[in-house]
Amino acid sequence: LGELELIEYIRSLASRERPTWLEVGIGDDAAVIRLPGGDRVVVTTDMLIEGTHFERGTAPEAVGYKAVARALSDLAAMASSPLCTVAAVSFGASHSPDWARRLSKALLESAEKLGAPLVGGDTSSGTAVLSLTLTALGLPGPKGVVRRAGARPGDAVCVTGRLGGSLMGRHLTFKPRTQEALELAGRFDVHAMIDISDGLSTDALHIAQESGVGLTLRAEAIPISEDACVMAGRRGPEDSPIRHALNDGEDYELLFCLSQADAVAAAQSGLAGAPVSIIGIVTAEKQSFILCPDGSREPLRGGGWEHLKR
Amino acid sequence: LGELELIEYIRSLASRERPTWLEVGIGDDAAVIRLPGGDRVVVTTDMLIEGTHFERGTAPEAVGYKAVARALSDLAAMASSPLCTVAAVSFGASHSPDWARRLSKALLESAEKLGAPLVGGDTSSGTAVLSLTLTALGLPGPKGVVRRAGARPGDAVCVTGRLGGSLMGRHLTFKPRTQEALELAGRFDVHAMIDISDGLSTDALHIAQESGVGLTLRAEAIPISEDACVMAGRRGPEDSPIRHALNDGEDYELLFCLSQADAVAAAQSGLAGAPVSIIGIVTAEKQSFILCPDGSREPLRGGGWEHLKR
Repeated sequence: LGELELIEYIRSLASRERPTWLEVGIGDDAAVIRLPGGDRVVVTTDMLIEGTHFERGTAPEAVGYKAVARALSDLAAMASSPLCTVAAVSFGASHSPDWARRLSKALLESAEKLGAPLVGGDTSSGTAVLSLTLTALGLPGPKGVVRRAGARPGDAVCVTGRLGGSLMGRHLTFKPRTQEALELAGRFDVHAMIDISDGLSTDALHIAQESGVGLTLRAEAIPISEDACVMAGRRGPEDSPIRHALNDGEDYELLFCLSQADAVAAAQSGLAGAPVSIIGIVTAEKQSFILCPDGSREPLRGGGWEHLKR
Repeated sequence: LGELELIEYIRSLASRERPTWLEVGIGDDAAVIRLPGGDRVVVTTDMLIEGTHFERGTAPEAVGYKAVARALSDLAAMASSPLCTVAAVSFGASHSPDWARRLSKALLESAEKLGAPLVGGDTSSGTAVLSLTLTALGLPGPKGVVRRAGARPGDAVCVTGRLGGSLMGRHLTFKPRTQEALELAGRFDVHAMIDISDGLSTDALHIAQESGVGLTLRAEAIPISEDACVMAGRRGPEDSPIRHALNDGEDYELLFCLSQADAVAAAQSGLAGAPVSIIGIVTAEKQSFILCPDGSREPLRGGGWEHLKR
């Protein structure tokens, strides 16, 4: 059962009546809850499974860091700042008490370092492999959250950083784009945003679908990481770096839509030291495309994690 | 690695400096966060593993219900009302898409029925058995939360419902004592509270430890469920119902301490229709005891889940 299918199913069941305190619900990177006194809290939950999200043998320090960083990346995608985290861990049968202690320490230290102290947890046993769920609470920025819905025809499509080849190691060490997202939302009117976890192609389609628009990306404008080039080089001539940049996923970069003028300003200044690239345009036509260097255009298909692995 | 050991370890690492917005942290049933505008949110996370928390072959409807009910029981233990939930699920390799859909539906419907609508989630694959983490957010009652710490010498020790033999089926069908906890905290000055998940003996020691006191329980006063009698009967003469009531766990009843006068009033009226029993007294002496019917007293030892299974 694919994630998208399940989320769609949950959404169809849940959409009947949304409580008034639920400002953003299922279908975005995080939910936004309005509390009785007027405070808003953003909540996201994220699961890491040994063998799926990290290789067996990965150091517990890297596993703990990734768990926290992934959840905070979801908060960043909503232009929200981290507040705190809770963790639920089922240690795999093969992990020693020392490994478990190192993972616990890594969770605590990573959470504190990334600005979302661990305030609670649950531990269990019974799984053959490590299963780790990180739930993060955050606070919306002063102008509120940014959602996947909201991209407008004529908007520029932008991305931070460089994409592809994350499995070379970056998927364990990336820094969530929290500061970048807060600066972005503070300086500009951002219409839609997502973090790239499933892959640029798939996540671009998420924005398109939620916003009821199309996205046309220019292949030549997509910033490709060195890792993507290395991976493509290893796999021979039928592979290419752009395929990795489009489909690998786990980049945890920000993909966002805003006016052309704002996009130019963001690309010129960068965000909190991170480069920003303008990679496409939003169209009223709901079909999404990729413009190839030879001038042809092809339908943009979700080639990210959802497509490849399920 | 036992849960207690890990929590103690995390606590030792985390206790160095607690953020000012963290009113209650690791070591209670849930954390309490103060938001910038003054709202408070209570958060708890709880993991369910197939084979550990429910038998393989359990209906997905029962699994989904239990996951939500367990998390809300933690909120009830803090005298907090449920607000919403998020779920992270890794479906076991053997579960069909239909089973997964039924579980998703059960999570949604149970959460709604118990007053904590599901507002987000994450799904994954890669575990051989089902791994399900439910995180619940709640709101403190008007007088604030009740913690494990706070029991005072001279207090009465009380419990709702009847204990033991939960594995006969009640562990899948119990109703979290939300209404009971809210009525209790509304009518009385409750000094300390916990929900009985690990077993009466172990959870009584949790209150004793956190409060820096001792608890002396009267064996004859402990309300024993019919299920405990049935289970003891099956196991022959060396077993007894009181052992099940003390040690089985998964009762999800409320164990709480308050003045003798308040305890008598609560026992006379019951709480939201649930019976209340006065089962012991809080002592300044930090050792905890069980008073046997023959007048002897024995040290109270944690015979609950932590002791038996690890």
